Amino acid sequence: MKISLAEINPKVGDLKYNTKLIIKHAEIANKNGAEILVTPELSLCGYPPEDLLLEKEFIDKCNHFLIEIAKKFPKLKIIIGHPRRKNKLLFNSVSLLYKGKINKTYDKQKLPNYGVFDEKRYFSSGRKPGLFKHKGKKFGLLICEDIWEDGPLEELNQLNADYVICVNASPYEFNKTKNKINIIQNRIDKLQGLNLIYLNCVGGQDELLFDGNSFITKPKKQKKNNLSFLSGQFISKNIIVDFSSSNNVEIKKICEKFPFHRKILNDPVALRDSSSSEKYLIYNLLNGLILAMKDYIEKNSIKKVFLGLSGGIDSAVVLFIASKVIKKENITAIMMPSEFTSKMSLEDAKKLATILAVDYKIIPIKKHVKLFDETLKDDFVGLNEDITEQNIQARIRGMILMAYANKFKGMVLATGNKSEMAVGYSTIYGDMVGGFSVLKDVPKTMVYKIANEINYKEIIIPQRIINRAPSAELSKNQIDQDSLPEYEVLDKIIDLHIEKNFSEKDLIKFGFSAKLVKKVVKLIKNNEFKRRQSAPGPKITSKAFGKDRRYPITNKFQL
Amino acid sequence: MKISLAEINPKVGDLKYNTKLIIKHAEIANKNGAEILVTPELSLCGYPPEDLLLEKEFIDKCNHFLIEIAKKFPKLKIIIGHPRRKNKLLFNSVSLLYKGKINKTYDKQKLPNYGVFDEKRYFSSGRKPGLFKHKGKKFGLLICEDIWEDGPLEELNQLNADYVICVNASPYEFNKTKNKINIIQNRIDKLQGLNLIYLNCVGGQDELLFDGNSFITKPKKQKKNNLSFLSGQFISKNIIVDFSSSNNVEIKKICEKFPFHRKILNDPVALRDSSSSEKYLIYNLLNGLILAMKDYIEKNSIKKVFLGLSGGIDSAVVLFIASKVIKKENITAIMMPSEFTSKMSLEDAKKLATILAVDYKIIPIKKHVKLFDETLKDDFVGLNEDITEQNIQARIRGMILMAYANKFKGMVLATGNKSEMAVGYSTIYGDMVGGFSVLKDVPKTMVYKIANEINYKEIIIPQRIINRAPSAELSKNQIDQDSLPEYEVLDKIIDLHIEKNFSEKDLIKFGFSAKLVKKVVKLIKNNEFKRRQSAPGPKITSKAFGKDRRYPITNKFQL
Repeated sequence: MKISLAEINPKVGDLKYNTKLIIKHAEIANKNGAEILVTPELSLCGYPPEDLLLEKEFIDKCNHFLIEIAKKFPKLKIIIGHPRRKNKLLFNSVSLLYKGKINKTYDKQKLPNYGVFDEKRYFSSGRKPGLFKHKGKKFGLLICEDIWEDGPLEELNQLNADYVICVNASPYEFNKTKNKINIIQNRIDKLQGLNLIYLNCVGGQDELLFDGNSFITKPKKQKKNNLSFLSGQFISKNIIVDFSSSNNVEIKKICEKFPFHRKILNDPVALRDSSSSEKYLIYNLLNGLILAMKDYIEKNSIKKVFLGLSGGIDSAVVLFIASKVIKKENITAIMMPSEFTSKMSLEDAKKLATILAVDYKIIPIKKHVKLFDETLKDDFVGLNEDITEQNIQARIRGMILMAYANKFKGMVLATGNKSEMAVGYSTIYGDMVGGFSVLKDVPKTMVYKIANEINYKEIIIPQRIINRAPSAELSKNQIDQDSLPEYEVLDKIIDLHIEKNFSEKDLIKFGFSAKLVKKVVKLIKNNEFKRRQSAPGPKITSKAFGKDRRYPITNKFQL
Repeated sequence: MKISLAEINPKVGDLKYNTKLIIKHAEIANKNGAEILVTPELSLCGYPPEDLLLEKEFIDKCNHFLIEIAKKFPKLKIIIGHPRRKNKLLFNSVSLLYKGKINKTYDKQKLPNYGVFDEKRYFSSGRKPGLFKHKGKKFGLLICEDIWEDGPLEELNQLNADYVICVNASPYEFNKTKNKINIIQNRIDKLQGLNLIYLNCVGGQDELLFDGNSFITKPKKQKKNNLSFLSGQFISKNIIVDFSSSNNVEIKKICEKFPFHRKILNDPVALRDSSSSEKYLIYNLLNGLILAMKDYIEKNSIKKVFLGLSGGIDSAVVLFIASKVIKKENITAIMMPSEFTSKMSLEDAKKLATILAVDYKIIPIKKHVKLFDETLKDDFVGLNEDITEQNIQARIRGMILMAYANKFKGMVLATGNKSEMAVGYSTIYGDMVGGFSVLKDVPKTMVYKIANEINYKEIIIPQRIINRAPSAELSKNQIDQDSLPEYEVLDKIIDLHIEKNFSEKDLIKFGFSAKLVKKVVKLIKNNEFKRRQSAPGPKITSKAFGKDRRYPITNKFQL
């Protein structure tokens, strides 16, 4: 018995494209003798469709394409995720298509409504288990959250399911794989003889990034490992699984090409076991960021990108990522030196642009700074230089980048990282300018690790960019640590406070100085207004800025 | 029997301030011989606290202040809204404080999770009705959404409640009052002899605006009206209600001062009946916008504001609103003429600034435009002038405004309206610059009505600003209708499509041309990226941009 798993990358709202994609995978399934094709959660419309779900015609159209697919492949059993309207209620459903029609539908029972998820905004909970028979075997159906909460999986077990197919749209998080598989394996191990087929989608969608990493576990027989397959992250593929032999699961992968940085491991157990090693995590993260940017650019039909290359590490990493997702002739890196730009920055920016062979421009902004200073000097007379003058430089650069993007119908790539987003060490309408912010959820210390990973075989990012003290170069001899704690410390506080939800008091107990903790927490709170106007970027930690973390701007809470 | 209704304006997260505010109202209650003090939904922490609710210490602190208030007023029965943790679950609760402790707690049963609401993200549903006795009468408790869905109200009726106290944090919407009261009255009329005391909070909080407008209905006896009180919109107050006489409800209002534009009606029935007349709706809307800006500015401790005064209607209305909420010496209006700025605009901007007696500056931007043009000319050679050159002007203005705001530690007021936000007729990082966007949800046609309302007694906004054809003045002889349909038509489409959720097909059936509908709907979809980086502004329609309308940026849906 062969099952085809379509680990696909749908486009939100593009029902025609997604239908074609599913049809392509149905053809692969047919060609390889599979009897069942499985596609991910809401595969027909992409995940998350957000308020498109509130449009009547969106749901109607989904239904239209669902029937179209059913008619096209009457002999193949196809499992498709789609929204479903019934008695004025909406469900997050999977349907089994067979003999030209909808043979069976299962409605998701457990609806996530935390973090990035808003499923209770749209959907009602299903009440019945999903089961179908194929060749004398019982197949149970689950959708994503269903497998994390008690109930649906246990019910399928009691109904003697032989196989459970769990379809997902489960967002990537750094270092989540091993833990996720272990938790699910432990739950499966408590049941009797279930095979679990866990299928996740792949791709970037605004703030979310899906990593695939589908897997199959066999029933536990001895103490030994029961993971028989793990697909790896970030490559869309079709996986033909042959369950004919009772002990072995045979696998055939049909992958799409992808502009990867390093190849990914192939052996499932090695993959799982290495999946929490830092080396593996970082190179996979880099591949994930490449996919996130690729999808934002391609799915939004963006043909050209522009970015400010400062000679610092953030823009260097962003430029490298861009070089993997869009042709080099469509990338323009612009160095915009002011009087505070060091020779080192100029040299390093040029070196990197040359190595990556992208279009490189130098546009000095001294004249512009001078003109704005003159414009303002009468009203600013007697006042000290402060952040105003620094912001003017950053905003002139933002303006120039936007002018290129407007004229050549492209997009600016924002280059900020999570550490600066957290504490507001950035200029709104200045270096925050851009349509996509690939490092938005990547702390500065992790940006360094990514830079080292980029250089793993040969020096791409000049070593000096990695080694020098980070500086915004907006005033004389400025370095970031004039205003901020060491990034090692700052990132630890961000991790504990934002991602792990520890309070100020907890942090002080952990040994950070009270003064420092108060300062950082206050900066985080007071810069919500900036983040609210920032470009979207992919969530890669357990708590990203954006829809994952919904804080009031007007917020007077303090301990 | 006297009840004191505290129609207060809490600050989100400012537990100390809110505690003081409640104490102040408890003192008013005591002084006026009231036996029960009622405060709104989540009055202790402000609404909506958003992800602050996920912080353990936030909930702990709420509990701390709750007990403090209880101890301070052992003889007064005080009803306070607060978040409550029980068995690791969180509830949206009201507690009755009495004899120095929490006497009774009711947990909200119906949790709204649509539109601007995310209550299922935080709260679990209560399961039991809330009832307490006072002087032989039974009082039922409800929280906001509880009264809109079947169940909780009917249950209290079956338990023979004499009075139902419904506490709310119910956001303002234009023209909602009459409909809201009628629906609730109809529900009450079906029950036996209930008195309803409906208390709502007042104030602005980021994207939300609460209008108060609390009311009391008596049991229906004859066909005649049973509305015995309606408090009016946007003024925080304490209302002492005397239920001693069986037929009459005596009312005493203790109001805060507020910089109103026109006084509000006093008679409840006249108020309700006039509440859907356009004149009333518009002057109340204007008062609401004044409160929204006032609260954003005061609650965020902003001392100075800056705005670009263009000679057009949007910035004129925003400047008028600002003049009502912050001292004139703390307002700076800057006219930044380019070569396309008309003499008329210069004259009218100056006239308005003079009438409103705010600080007024003229900063020509021709030199700046020229410098950027020179910077870009080599790379733009042979390419037509387009939106790029227009955006450069808007961005220079944004830069200058931000420089003033930075230097004088103030905030820029954004001046865009809903019509341009919808179709993207605005420059990101240009005229969209600002911390608060008071007209964000106000369609252009309504901006005109507000301008006329501002001029109701004397000309404040020069009539020519209202009469002339709207123009961004970013290119030669440009008017808005070169690129957009008439605002009457555009706003109708926005109302039907965005606010009333009609589809493209519906709109074409209604008689709009297919070409026009497709163009507008496409513009709305394609400009989501701009709106995502826009300043917050108060929701005043049934569907505002922001958390009320969550659309994917990457969105390929089309019919």
